[in-house]
Amino acid sequence: MLYEGKAKRIYAHENPQQVRIEYKDSLTAFNALKKGSFEKKGQINRNIASLLFRFLQKKGISSHWVADEGDVSMIVKKLNIIPLEVVVRNTLAGSTAKKLGIPEGRVLEQPLVEFYYKDDALGDPFLSDDQALMLKIASREELEKLKVLALQVNSELKKLFASIQIDLIDFKIEFGRDEKSQILLGDEISPDSCRLWDQKNGEKMDKDRFRRDLGNIHEAYTEVLSRLTNALKEELS
Amino acid sequence: MLYEGKAKRIYAHENPQQVRIEYKDSLTAFNALKKGSFEKKGQINRNIASLLFRFLQKKGISSHWVADEGDVSMIVKKLNIIPLEVVVRNTLAGSTAKKLGIPEGRVLEQPLVEFYYKDDALGDPFLSDDQALMLKIASREELEKLKVLALQVNSELKKLFASIQIDLIDFKIEFGRDEKSQILLGDEISPDSCRLWDQKNGEKMDKDRFRRDLGNIHEAYTEVLSRLTNALKEELS
Repeated sequence: MLYEGKAKRIYAHENPQQVRIEYKDSLTAFNALKKGSFEKKGQINRNIASLLFRFLQKKGISSHWVADEGDVSMIVKKLNIIPLEVVVRNTLAGSTAKKLGIPEGRVLEQPLVEFYYKDDALGDPFLSDDQALMLKIASREELEKLKVLALQVNSELKKLFASIQIDLIDFKIEFGRDEKSQILLGDEISPDSCRLWDQKNGEKMDKDRFRRDLGNIHEAYTEVLSRLTNALKEELS
Repeated sequence: MLYEGKAKRIYAHENPQQVRIEYKDSLTAFNALKKGSFEKKGQINRNIASLLFRFLQKKGISSHWVADEGDVSMIVKKLNIIPLEVVVRNTLAGSTAKKLGIPEGRVLEQPLVEFYYKDDALGDPFLSDDQALMLKIASREELEKLKVLALQVNSELKKLFASIQIDLIDFKIEFGRDEKSQILLGDEISPDSCRLWDQKNGEKMDKDRFRRDLGNIHEAYTEVLSRLTNALKEELS
């Protein structure tokens, strides 16, 4: 094992350019102050992330995904992770809604891209582009590239989720550089890292069910996987 | 009186395009949770702000300053204030140093410009450019203009303070639009809104003496005014 995170473990792989990511059943919130888990969570999230990475690949957006392995793991390209949480918001919710005193649910005219500095000890502080440059996290050109890629991911995922009656409210992604310094989508995309609101009844289908003690977490994650599997059955077969 | 702020009162003026700003003796910190005052503070800050506005005018940077009046007031052009606190940092200190876990005193390779949303109820939250655009506070071009102006102000003030053995660590300025939508420097520039460290002994000569209970606030502000008055005696006579 190379590294254990809050919801994943990273293992070395026989191919030194690759690693194996194992999705754990645990989930955390509020910078790990709140901890929980549920059965099959790792498997569900691995399956959702795998579907989404393969879907995005078909749309021309490259990620680290190489292949699934077993029930809870995927083989991915080894990346040098850029220490930014890249957040895209279509509708205001969570920390930015709170910070700006705007009620959750305000639909934005344009999607908003935000950068947060990946540093648990600092509480992942929000950064402006100029602060990210000052910290030498990436060049100005790379920051622009991250924004363009994040907006492309958003555009594709928003359509996909709309086709299964889910509003993609916001999501967090991460990027890394491969051995050629190419920027690829990394980490995961799952209900842990997205806000997904059911268009039928407005119900939350994501980690906010855990953060806010809304119950039925397992059912919500399972329903997301089930709808995605149906929607992508032919496209990814 | 049109408005009373934490350290200033704004009065209508006979010329409807102008207002009178009266500098109060009070000072506050931590979003007005901490309050204090000292004698002649209003007069000292009016004199410092007046010197700096006139100095910047000579360097080609226009502000709202029109004329001093009495001991504690100045007549200024009426502006439509852009609700951003524009902060320029040459050396990290205060909230950004804390947020990034960097010790105070780290000298930056390039000055850093930051925007904070002027909203006391929200605690003046830090904004990225994209968030400021989303809030329709200013256009992309205006934000760039604000950055350019802020860096020009910084360049001139840094040289001026260095000439009187003071390091300009950081400062906060505000801008407004006049009746022709021209962007002018507004509000004030004083030890209330700057961090000023004495090059001789590293002593703080600004509102941090109040925030951090360091004592000798009056002496520090008086010393800043005295050095500025000497330095600008000929230039502004």
